[in-house]
Order: sequence, then structure tokens, then C-alpha cells
Amino acid sequence: MTRITSSELAAHVGERVTLAGWVHHQRRLAQVTFLLLRDAAGIAQVVVVDDGDRAVAAGLLPEAVVEIDASVVASSQAPGGFELHQPVLTVLVNPSEAPPFEMRRPELQASLPSLLDHAAIALRHPRIRAATSISAASVAGFRSTLDGLGFTEIHTPKIVGTATESGANVFSLDYFGRTAYLAQSPQLYKQIMVGVFERVYETGPVFRAEPHDTVRHLAEYVSLDVELGFIRDHRDVEAVLRDVLAGMVETIVERASPAVELLGVQLPVVPDEIPRIHFHDAQELLEAATGEQVVGEPDLAPAHERWLGHWALTEHGSDFLFVEGYPMAKRPFYTHPEPARPGHSNSFDLLFRGLELVTGGQRLHRHQDYLDVTDEQTRAALAGYLEAFEHGMPPHGGFAIGLERWTARIVGAANIREVTLFPRDLNRITP
Amino acid sequence: MTRITSSELAAHVGERVTLAGWVHHQRRLAQVTFLLLRDAAGIAQVVVVDDGDRAVAAGLLPEAVVEIDASVVASSQAPGGFELHQPVLTVLVNPSEAPPFEMRRPELQASLPSLLDHAAIALRHPRIRAATSISAASVAGFRSTLDGLGFTEIHTPKIVGTATESGANVFSLDYFGRTAYLAQSPQLYKQIMVGVFERVYETGPVFRAEPHDTVRHLAEYVSLDVELGFIRDHRDVEAVLRDVLAGMVETIVERASPAVELLGVQLPVVPDEIPRIHFHDAQELLEAATGEQVVGEPDLAPAHERWLGHWALTEHGSDFLFVEGYPMAKRPFYTHPEPARPGHSNSFDLLFRGLELVTGGQRLHRHQDYLDVTDEQTRAALAGYLEAFEHGMPPHGGFAIGLERWTARIVGAANIREVTLFPRDLNRITP
Repeated sequence: MTRITSSELAAHVGERVTLAGWVHHQRRLAQVTFLLLRDAAGIAQVVVVDDGDRAVAAGLLPEAVVEIDASVVASSQAPGGFELHQPVLTVLVNPSEAPPFEMRRPELQASLPSLLDHAAIALRHPRIRAATSISAASVAGFRSTLDGLGFTEIHTPKIVGTATESGANVFSLDYFGRTAYLAQSPQLYKQIMVGVFERVYETGPVFRAEPHDTVRHLAEYVSLDVELGFIRDHRDVEAVLRDVLAGMVETIVERASPAVELLGVQLPVVPDEIPRIHFHDAQELLEAATGEQVVGEPDLAPAHERWLGHWALTEHGSDFLFVEGYPMAKRPFYTHPEPARPGHSNSFDLLFRGLELVTGGQRLHRHQDYLDVTDEQTRAALAGYLEAFEHGMPPHGGFAIGLERWTARIVGAANIREVTLFPRDLNRITP
Repeated sequence: MTRITSSELAAHVGERVTLAGWVHHQRRLAQVTFLLLRDAAGIAQVVVVDDGDRAVAAGLLPEAVVEIDASVVASSQAPGGFELHQPVLTVLVNPSEAPPFEMRRPELQASLPSLLDHAAIALRHPRIRAATSISAASVAGFRSTLDGLGFTEIHTPKIVGTATESGANVFSLDYFGRTAYLAQSPQLYKQIMVGVFERVYETGPVFRAEPHDTVRHLAEYVSLDVELGFIRDHRDVEAVLRDVLAGMVETIVERASPAVELLGVQLPVVPDEIPRIHFHDAQELLEAATGEQVVGEPDLAPAHERWLGHWALTEHGSDFLFVEGYPMAKRPFYTHPEPARPGHSNSFDLLFRGLELVTGGQRLHRHQDYLDVTDEQTRAALAGYLEAFEHGMPPHGGFAIGLERWTARIVGAANIREVTLFPRDLNRITP
């Protein structure tokens, strides 16, 4: 008999089927044991009445791995609408110890550090697994949208000879006796690759030696990176980002609806035109609303971002807001200035529900412009990058989405670690 | 006018269109200049007859970035069957220097080190770009096949507290004052995740401090990793691998046919059943054929693999061959033994055209089995991994495909560096 999963019972009512999975929980009543079998697709209820079988089941600890042949019966009272009757139980593995948490609870009753310490078992819990499913669907939507827009996927090195963005927050390593670094982003490589494919993307790990222990920073995270050539300015980049976000939400619906339902997630609607506000105008709004001195500050504080997120929702009915024209002073050297507003840039942040989710913008593309913003030492260190500009690069730009931030915001997790399989931070490097 | 690419000319004969890209080459005759414009899709021929325009074109170096409005004309003599007439040329960027190679040549005339040093420009060459397109299509096919088989994509950490496979060949780094390592594979994490999703895959970088300078090793490469639960044995793993390979070839055909054609690639046919031979039988064959003493050796030499590749082709008409039952002595600690043959394992290598491309097999899944093969120190270091087995793991197995090796073998590259965007090895860390 071929194995089916717990989500396929409806098609097999009245038949004998084989299921396999983990013993999620057992409810032992006087005459009957209800055994909940968890597999990759969900949970199925097995009704055990035979005394011998009930004795075998009673000997099983939670997370025992079992195979069950049984008859599928429709039952309005059973979770999911179906039950398994007359089971024949084969025990594949019976653990020697019970899990450190009661897996049967709708939410695990444990502190976040404890959940992270015991990730190997905590990640099996349906709610945590659901967040991972949403993350996986998001990445699939990111890629399929970009594939549809003519982008090519690339894989660029994570061991680099020079710190990508700046000297700060970079991990160094011993590379065959020399010092190398872990890439803080694929920025320089994805720009080079615009010269090859015009439109490229990469999904991969990036590394930041973040000395801060916050709910939204990790030492290693997954960056969804995009770069495209032959743009007019950053608005063309924003348009691609808008489509990517819409594609990510669509694919969550297509591939992870059970997870969305289980977690009670309110998926955002991505407007055809995401509202936008200039950095300077945002500061004036903030100043008028809060009475604080804000205009002239080089960046927005998290509280300002939250305020603007709320403003976008009430004023434009949007979970998303582009803040454009960040001061050049706070942007990296490859940032393209805003032609009409000296000191500002053709760059943007995308706020999602009041949290910075994406940074992007137009980059410099003329070789001379790079010579103007780098010193001799930098030019030597970045020679292999600057060579791309020496030989003709079109106007281009791009963005990067932090996957864990996206997932956290989608599922409403307060701490980014809740939606990261095996988070890395100042204090944590295992499991 | 909306921009079109060089592959869309057929649909616009008789119309004015806008193209943009790089000046690939110019052929200047007495009355006419043929300008080859290269864009992401290919190359288009622009016919320049106006003297003013010809003067402008004459001032452009190779790799100049230009936008061209022109009329599409069918022409049996033009490459691709179409030409662009009456062009209006806008120069976006004219480089200050010509490239270090003649980009117009069908193959770049330069040594591999020189090509790698100047990757920013060499990667733009149509042949090198074609290999990258084939690589990207392969990864897309890997993912879509697995998505169709119910696998979930995961992202596991590359900074780890313990060397994954063994203490050898591992890069160490300073992690907030402690020593950490770069993951040699996602092996331990993908096994943990079988407990969560049953079937998982990951595409990401892995790191090997390879002290050998060979044509088939890199210090960083892309590993296409798969792990699945509820298997009978390694044969179930081989069946998934077979489907994955077929999906990769299919997607190359779908997405990268122009690249296949340009490179004259003979794509392999993946048989419904890939032929298999036991390690021991392979050694007996080799011994009989070569007269060498081979039986009893713990591994196959590259020359043996080549011989077996040839044997599979002549004997079975297959580019692929499973060699099963490698000696336990040469396999990692998590390897499942072969029940019927002590000393051998339920593991395999897949040879592709005589080169080891994939390693895989069944893993141990009982907690006690792991306790039996680890010492106390290892158990302490791997506590977060072993916890998965403490709480019920099904029989499982998996495999890993080296992306660069795959691509090299597909396009017939002698050196893996030829198909790696920015290779990392003993001597190379830039660009």
C-alpha cells in the first residue's frame, strides 16, 4: 500500500490506507484511545479500540515514529473531518525520552531561549513549522516573479577579500594564512553581474558581526537580492520591488494557506502603486505631529518608522510605504545622488507595517563617479569591482529584502529569532 | 517607445523599436558600419550608413553602453535573420579604455587566470555567460522537481559551532571572541529538518579549506542538498535523485536552449533507471580489466571512475552510474551500514560521465546507533543535532550535488573555475 499524507484522507473514504509520522498526542479514555498522528501535511486522528493495540500505544512516548494501516471514515467530530479506524500499528522508533515541551499544546509553553536551544524538537511544532512554510513560500514567490521578469539567478562568493559595505560589523577569517571576510551583502557582485545579464537576483546568506542584541538583528540572515540595469532612476527599481512583494504574497496564498490559517495571519495587500514620501517631507510630517526636532537628522528612528507606517495605513490604506531621498551622508558610497536635491539620494527604504524591510535605490554607474567617491586604498581593494565600471555599465539599481524580517512581520513575531531555524547572534552559535 | 531585446525582433519587422545594450563589435566598411549590439538576450546587427552617425560610432570603444531607436528589417544575411536600419544612437556611457580581451572573438583568447582576474568583463562574453545560464536553469530545475515532490526549502546557518563533517578542511573564524567554523555542508541541519518537514532541500554555499590546487576542487561552492524521511533504504534516495537530474536537464532545455546551442552542448539523457553497480563488483571489474590490484582498496581513484563511466556508457548506454555500497571506513559517522554486507554501507556515489558528481545514501536514524558511533566529546559538540534522534527520527537519507561540477561536466569545461563566477581557491580570493 502506498503511503498517503494526512491531507489526502478525503479522497480515500472507505479505503484502507497507510500513513506514517509522529505520535503527536494520545487521549486515553475508558474504552478508546485517540492517537493524533502528525506528518508533513498535518494531523490525523486514529481511533484505537483493540485492547492489545491500546496497550502498544500506551507504551509509546510523544514523537514516536509509527506507520499505520487503517480505514478512512468520515466523521464530523474528528479534527479535519476524517478519522482512521481499525488501525494496524507498526512502531518504527519509540524514543527513550519525552520531549522537553508538551508538543500537543496549541502554543509551546517555553521561553524563546529554551525553544532555540531545543530547536531540533521545537521546530516540529505546527505553529513554528507554519512560519517556516510561509518563509519558504515567500522565497519561491520572490524567485518566480523575477524569473517572469527576465532575471537570472546568480551565486556569488561569501568569502571575500574586502569588506563589502564598510569596515564595521564584518567577520574575518583565516583563509589559507591570509585574512578574508564574510560578505556583508552580495552588493558589489550583483552590480558586476548587471554588466552580464542586465537583471540578476540572488537568495543567500549574508553576515553581520552585529554587536547589538536586538529583536531585529542577526549575525547571519538570508538576503533576497535584486539588481537591474537600464533603469531611468530608483522608481524603476521600486516598480520591480512592488511586483516582487505582490508575487511573494500570492505564492504564500498558493503554497502555504494551511499555515496562514493556522497562524491567523492577515496577509498584506500590495497596492498597485505603493505610496511614497520624500525623506524630507516625512521629517516635516513627523516634526509637525510630534513636536520633536526631526528635520535635519540624517536618519529615521524606529519610532519614526512606526509613526510613518501608521500614517501610511490611515492616510493611504497601505501596509507599505516608500521613503525616498535619504541623505547621501547615511548611504553607502555607490549610492546615486538625487539630481534635483543636493545632499539627498535616489535611494529608498520600504517600510512594511512600520518596520524597515527593504533598502534599495539607484547606484552610480559612471567610472569617474566611482573615482570621485573612493580613495586610493579603496580603489586598490575594489579593483575587480571598479573594472566593471571602467568597461561600460548602464544606469542600474536594486534592493535587498531581509527574509527573516519579512517573515516575522507577516506572522506577527515580535522577535526575528522566532522565525529563524537556527539563529546566530552575539550569544548564540548552536545548535 | 518601450525597449525590446535582441531576441524579440521577429515580432517587430517594419516597426521602429528601441534596443539598449553594449557595443560588442563594429565592422567599418567603406560605405557602411555594422555595429553589433549585445544585450541580455543576444546580439543584434545595426546598419549605420549616415556619415554623422558613423563618426559617432567610430568614437565608441567596445563595451560602450548605448540606446538605439531603429527600424527592424528582415535580412537573410544578418546574424539571427534581422537587421536594424536608420538607427538613432544615444550614447549612455563610452568607456575610457578598451577591454583587456577582444570580446568579439567566438572564444576569448586569454589564459584562465587572466579571465578570472578580469571576471567583471570576461563574464560578459557570450560563451561564459551561456555556461552561467545553464547553471541557473539547472538550479531552477532542481527546485521545481523537488517542489513537485513535496519538498520544503530550508535555509540553515553557514556559521557553525562545530565542524560538520570532520575536523579537516574547515575554515575557522573569530565569532565575537569565540572560534566558529564555516559549514562544510548543511548535512546535520537538513537531517534535523527531516524531523520537521520529512522532505527538505537547500541550495547554498558550502566551504572547504581545500589545500589542493586541482581542476575540480574549490574552497567555496554551491551545494544542492536534499534529505528525505520515511525511506526503505538508499534506493528511495536514488529514485529522487534520478528525478531531480531529469528535471535539471529538462529545465536547461526549457530555459537555456540558446546557451546549449551556442556551446554545442550534448545534454545527457537521464535513463528511467540509472544503472547501478556495487562497489565490490566495480572493483572486481576494474581488477579484471586493468590487471591492477583494486579489490580491498577503500575508495575508487579518479582513473577508476573514468573507466566505470566509460563502462556504463558502452554497457548500459548511460552517462550516469550509481556505485553503491562504499566501505563504511571511508564514509562519515552518520552513514547507514549495508545490512547484508558487513563493512559496506547503504551509500552511493553517482558518476556522471566518469566523474563523481553526487554523494548520498541512507543515514543512521536510531538514537542508540549515534551513541554507538560517537565519543563523549563528539556527543557534547553535537548535542543539538543528536537531540533530533533522541525524539524520534524516521529512516531517512539524502544527497548533495555540487553545482559547479555539474555545470562543468554539462558544458565540457576541463576546469571547474571556468563555470564559477568568482572562484575561491588556495590562491584566489579576488575579485
